[in-house]
Amino acid sequence: MMTMPEPARSDVLIIGGGLIGLATAWRTAVRGLSVTLCDPAPGANASFAAAGMLTPVTELHYGEETLLDLNLASAKRYPSFIAELQEAAGGLDPGYTEAGTLVVAFDGDDREVLADLHLFQQSLGLKAEWLAGSQARRLEPMLAPSVRGGLLVSGDHQVDNRMLLAALFAALEREPQVRIVRSKVAEVTVAGDRATGVVLDDGRALAAEQVVLSAGCWSGQIGGIPPELLPPVRPIKGQILRLAVPEVFRPFVSRTVRYVVRNNQAYLVPRAHGELVLGATVEEQDYDTTVTAGGVYELLRDARELVPGITELPLIETRAALRPGTPDNAPMIGPTALPGLLYATGHYRHGVLLTPATADGMAEILATGEVPEALAPFSPQRFGRPQK
Amino acid sequence: MMTMPEPARSDVLIIGGGLIGLATAWRTAVRGLSVTLCDPAPGANASFAAAGMLTPVTELHYGEETLLDLNLASAKRYPSFIAELQEAAGGLDPGYTEAGTLVVAFDGDDREVLADLHLFQQSLGLKAEWLAGSQARRLEPMLAPSVRGGLLVSGDHQVDNRMLLAALFAALEREPQVRIVRSKVAEVTVAGDRATGVVLDDGRALAAEQVVLSAGCWSGQIGGIPPELLPPVRPIKGQILRLAVPEVFRPFVSRTVRYVVRNNQAYLVPRAHGELVLGATVEEQDYDTTVTAGGVYELLRDARELVPGITELPLIETRAALRPGTPDNAPMIGPTALPGLLYATGHYRHGVLLTPATADGMAEILATGEVPEALAPFSPQRFGRPQK
Repeated sequence: MMTMPEPARSDVLIIGGGLIGLATAWRTAVRGLSVTLCDPAPGANASFAAAGMLTPVTELHYGEETLLDLNLASAKRYPSFIAELQEAAGGLDPGYTEAGTLVVAFDGDDREVLADLHLFQQSLGLKAEWLAGSQARRLEPMLAPSVRGGLLVSGDHQVDNRMLLAALFAALEREPQVRIVRSKVAEVTVAGDRATGVVLDDGRALAAEQVVLSAGCWSGQIGGIPPELLPPVRPIKGQILRLAVPEVFRPFVSRTVRYVVRNNQAYLVPRAHGELVLGATVEEQDYDTTVTAGGVYELLRDARELVPGITELPLIETRAALRPGTPDNAPMIGPTALPGLLYATGHYRHGVLLTPATADGMAEILATGEVPEALAPFSPQRFGRPQK
Repeated sequence: MMTMPEPARSDVLIIGGGLIGLATAWRTAVRGLSVTLCDPAPGANASFAAAGMLTPVTELHYGEETLLDLNLASAKRYPSFIAELQEAAGGLDPGYTEAGTLVVAFDGDDREVLADLHLFQQSLGLKAEWLAGSQARRLEPMLAPSVRGGLLVSGDHQVDNRMLLAALFAALEREPQVRIVRSKVAEVTVAGDRATGVVLDDGRALAAEQVVLSAGCWSGQIGGIPPELLPPVRPIKGQILRLAVPEVFRPFVSRTVRYVVRNNQAYLVPRAHGELVLGATVEEQDYDTTVTAGGVYELLRDARELVPGITELPLIETRAALRPGTPDNAPMIGPTALPGLLYATGHYRHGVLLTPATADGMAEILATGEVPEALAPFSPQRFGRPQK
């Protein structure tokens, strides 16, 4: 094999190698376009820290019905997306598991929160089954006797986001049209009123027909973009723990268990290989990624109320990462007002879930110039920033 | 410099490179004896995990008056020991700090525990000052308003055990008579009814006039020693956390703060460089060194009751290590019934405090054959095991 010189130009240049950037690179390459992805540390931050819940129904929020449609579509796409990815990755398992999700309540007030959620789900035609505390404990015997009721959503699943990242890397390695550049992008280059590529922080210039910004909470900090077009993303810190489940305790829980404890919400996500993910705080702390005594304390305190046996489990990882939040909690996907510049960012707490819908949609836009109808509500141009 | 062949023989061979083994090696070398110390990972386990409290008065326990004398003697020896060590270490600071220790109580019952301790201290002529809650808060403003009283012991200090380890390593490097062999000892060799050296687990044999066993909780697992002479040590697990104190919060606490919360005892030890040590659980868990969700939870919960601001601090380390416990909670220091075999082990929760007294005493015994009077009560031969 010859060492090939770096191509000066590609069809698409993606800034950011989280799940969104990596999956967009893969789906775009499948369409026959050449792709360069730039990230000093692809597969890190929120994509690596995440719990990988695919739970559009249990994570439903008032006022987010439009987002719900996209969430449901992406959840529905997951099985085929995973099958295609596994084939593209030479058989590597992307870690998708269909086991359903149980949400439980700690006290009477928490039970009201759950009952409200159930009514809202029903009003939207979503499938969720109300369980008495005793029924919930029959499904998950580690639940505390005090559990006051639950909601079983058999269609909400999970993917091991770290296995998903590994499968995406493997698929991209097999795509000759894709190149990953492990460097930081300093700025987008703009010429003749369109984006024409990027300059890396080491000074190298890379040209591209189209530039996709998918740099998570750092998307607003790329140089070269007219300030009024910069995406209004902000970092929302999440602290998350990983526990090990020794053989003798398995299965500790058999499905994702979300819970409401004194109006706090948190969750446990069990992995096939014996890991248990316990998340997550939601904090407006700017770009701080320290794990704090208080964050760890609150996560353990709440988990312990619902699943007392958790105290016996080894604590194997503590981590904090930054979700990219937007003013309306919905992502920005599609063309911007600057020709040649597109955004796929701002996925907040739904990045893993929305990976297939975003990657497929972006590939369609990049290949054809047409925005799929499902993505229209998530145009980056919806925010009323002053235009020049 | 020529590479020298490994000497086949040394005056003293020490099994175990924790604080006790390392300090004994140093003090023995100072007496002119050649020393070989064997440990696959010197400076690890309990010596590395410890908080470094030198608190004989605040850690006083009923029934341990004999041990108190040794603890007080070792605490008194600390300043000169540190000065000598710093000189021997080429100026490296061993991290000794004299700032006193405050013990505080959470509720009325805890206050009773503290009041009992104070009476016991007074009955033994020990110096401790009773404080109202408000007085304790004046000394340590981060204490919760609920603090019910405190005990100030201005003579109880601390040493940064990791700096102490580094200084001991530096001092030993400067001793041409000392050699550290980073291997595990498989067995003690016995010939003609006396210990004559050891065999390493790679098969190498090392000969010595005298063999010192200072392998902490693993001291009972060395081969070759007649079973009835093996030291009755067992592992007592401690989980311990380290927090960082950002500049803006310093000084978070100005001295060691011990506390009694609902009859649990724990402590915070502030380091000069901004680290805060939060310890420790006391668990009989065999040789398990996993950090558990429950251990971390309980340490954070109790600390938070007394010092609520702790929730803001970065959690930078979680760790578990094993203390060497004995049937009477006191160490075994001195000759065994097998000529040439000595023990310096079983220091349980007082290993850091007892390092000077143990090392000085062992050096005296190894150099002269005479057991100092202060060590007589801690003879390894005091346990009534059947002799052959």
